[in-house]
Amino acid sequence: MTTEAAGAGALLTILRDGRARTRAELMQLTGLARSTVSQRLDALSDQRWIIPSNDAISSGGRPAVAFAFNAGARIVLAADLGATHARLAVTDLATQVLAEHSADVPITDGPEKVLGWLVDAFHRLLDESGHTLDQVCGAGIGLPGPVEHQTGLPVNPPIMPGWDGFDVPGWLGRRLGVPILVDNDVNIMALGEHWAASPEIEHLLFVKVATGIGSGIITEHRLHRGAQGAAGDIGHIRVTTSDIVCRCGNTGCLEAVASGAALAALLRAAGEDAANSRDVVALVRAGNARAVQLVRQAGRDIGEVLAALVNFFNPGGIIIGGDMADAGEYLLAGVREVVYSRSLPLATQHLSIRVRQLDDRAGVIGASVLVIEHILSPGVIDEAVAAHA
Amino acid sequence: MTTEAAGAGALLTILRDGRARTRAELMQLTGLARSTVSQRLDALSDQRWIIPSNDAISSGGRPAVAFAFNAGARIVLAADLGATHARLAVTDLATQVLAEHSADVPITDGPEKVLGWLVDAFHRLLDESGHTLDQVCGAGIGLPGPVEHQTGLPVNPPIMPGWDGFDVPGWLGRRLGVPILVDNDVNIMALGEHWAASPEIEHLLFVKVATGIGSGIITEHRLHRGAQGAAGDIGHIRVTTSDIVCRCGNTGCLEAVASGAALAALLRAAGEDAANSRDVVALVRAGNARAVQLVRQAGRDIGEVLAALVNFFNPGGIIIGGDMADAGEYLLAGVREVVYSRSLPLATQHLSIRVRQLDDRAGVIGASVLVIEHILSPGVIDEAVAAHA
Repeated sequence: MTTEAAGAGALLTILRDGRARTRAELMQLTGLARSTVSQRLDALSDQRWIIPSNDAISSGGRPAVAFAFNAGARIVLAADLGATHARLAVTDLATQVLAEHSADVPITDGPEKVLGWLVDAFHRLLDESGHTLDQVCGAGIGLPGPVEHQTGLPVNPPIMPGWDGFDVPGWLGRRLGVPILVDNDVNIMALGEHWAASPEIEHLLFVKVATGIGSGIITEHRLHRGAQGAAGDIGHIRVTTSDIVCRCGNTGCLEAVASGAALAALLRAAGEDAANSRDVVALVRAGNARAVQLVRQAGRDIGEVLAALVNFFNPGGIIIGGDMADAGEYLLAGVREVVYSRSLPLATQHLSIRVRQLDDRAGVIGASVLVIEHILSPGVIDEAVAAHA
Repeated sequence: MTTEAAGAGALLTILRDGRARTRAELMQLTGLARSTVSQRLDALSDQRWIIPSNDAISSGGRPAVAFAFNAGARIVLAADLGATHARLAVTDLATQVLAEHSADVPITDGPEKVLGWLVDAFHRLLDESGHTLDQVCGAGIGLPGPVEHQTGLPVNPPIMPGWDGFDVPGWLGRRLGVPILVDNDVNIMALGEHWAASPEIEHLLFVKVATGIGSGIITEHRLHRGAQGAAGDIGHIRVTTSDIVCRCGNTGCLEAVASGAALAALLRAAGEDAANSRDVVALVRAGNARAVQLVRQAGRDIGEVLAALVNFFNPGGIIIGGDMADAGEYLLAGVREVVYSRSLPLATQHLSIRVRQLDDRAGVIGASVLVIEHILSPGVIDEAVAAHA
């Protein structure tokens, strides 16, 4: 790699905010010589990572040429694979969705069947949107279970029989020929919500309340995955000393008392027709008093755990996502009640607590962010530019 | 700032691991041209940040000159101010203690009296160790209360009357003429233990159990301070539904049931002679059965909170510090019992839980690390080198 190529990524990092800049501005921002900046801009332009901006900037004399990041330089494949449902998208380098598709695909069909379907579906989506595989810079995949970050392998995923240790990046990489990034579905939702709806929040907690309960942690604008990639698994924190048995084998876990599955079971026991979290939300929306009461108490139980995490982690914001987020204020009211009463005033004075803004799309947006952040990181982009220079 | 100066910090970052490297090695590691590397090495040598190494490296022909980081280039002033006791040190740039001093100084004497004493004590310590103020590159100060990270100001510190919002960095900076870095005492202890005893642990949780209970969080080898700098305040997480009132105004807080102050009060109520956490430890060491039982239960209560935080944060290690750490295995046994039974297996399989290794010195070592990390960060060192070049 040459010195000039090594610096191209740094220029792109500056330009990624979408604002166009002149050669002179870039010289000032980097302290680099005119010739070096010119060489780097030429390499980035040749490969279409940047384009001359229409906003030519005048400073008295003739207008100077400005350069802007080209979000259309490459495209990204994104997939959010859930327990029973898959959502795919083709996006540009600013996560704008160019085409999307969703389908019922049981993750229990095992990796070869599900991923085989995914490869076909990505090809169909590329055709539909008028793109080809050689424009793709990478694919981001969310899976509904723990994923080892370094390798992208699922690790003992409880609801994914046949997937444990399956080489998802290798298998897909051989068929698609692009870098594959794999992460847990809650992590990609956290990334998606942070990127698209709360980019100003440096430390963010995203909580998915659906069949189960989990969280994604953003710190300094990046995912915190922890020592084993297991960070965020808050569903098995104890919230009650009662002996309700959780699927993890312990008692009193948050997930066993406040998840959509737990509430549906309580409603069924009370004679209501509730198979899953969506049914619970439907009952709440229909004004079923028992469902409203249960959701509010679930909010308090979740709030009990979040109150502790607010003291510990001091986030700037908490976002509640997952199906149960559609219960809206009923759930939020319980969460806020306990967090504001139990957390320290210094930690809650500027804390925002809200429900998700992206609905079901957070996952694919986040999967796209996963790819974009990797591909445009200075080291990776430097190598890409040098390889083609 | 020139381009050459802008790169000097990057060379120093490479050399900071203590290993000497030749010009050729540095060219290979950075991809920079020989002339550029030479200019930067000259600037760093002139200002004594690096020195020629005695380990001349031979590759067949005549031995090549190697350069190593000079930990003696500057010195650091470090202070760990506790509730009643202060500990000071002069260290080199590798945190080696060159001189130290400790004294009983009540923080309740207020900022001007305490900081005035500190300035005098620093001067005496410099004299003793044969150094002068112009060799000092910065001072790091730990305070026993919350500190706003950006400004270094204490924020509503409960046990520090008169200190709220006092401009510690400004006041000390005017008298010492060097950059002043201020942080919470538990944060600097966490930094000190991480730096000196567990540098290999990327995500580390340091828990201080003394009169109160607090924690310092290391993520990706750096302190996580949170949105308001309040992160780590775990003493007020609820661990019991009983109505024990905490000094924060809530009930059932960890600090109200498991701190040294809480245990001392329980022992006094049982007729024992225990004024503070040190007395509790002394009773445990003397084999007092009631004290042993209470400390073990305190370990379980702390373990209950840590079990939740292990699921959430997935640290690679937990270090128990503070006076109560001297109760050793009795406290650890309770912590481990609950963490291993309540946390998820994936998060505990490689988790180490141990007591502190640095004893009372962790604070001053961490205060020194705070200064060194700041002074040697690429941006700051670049400016310093450029200013003298």
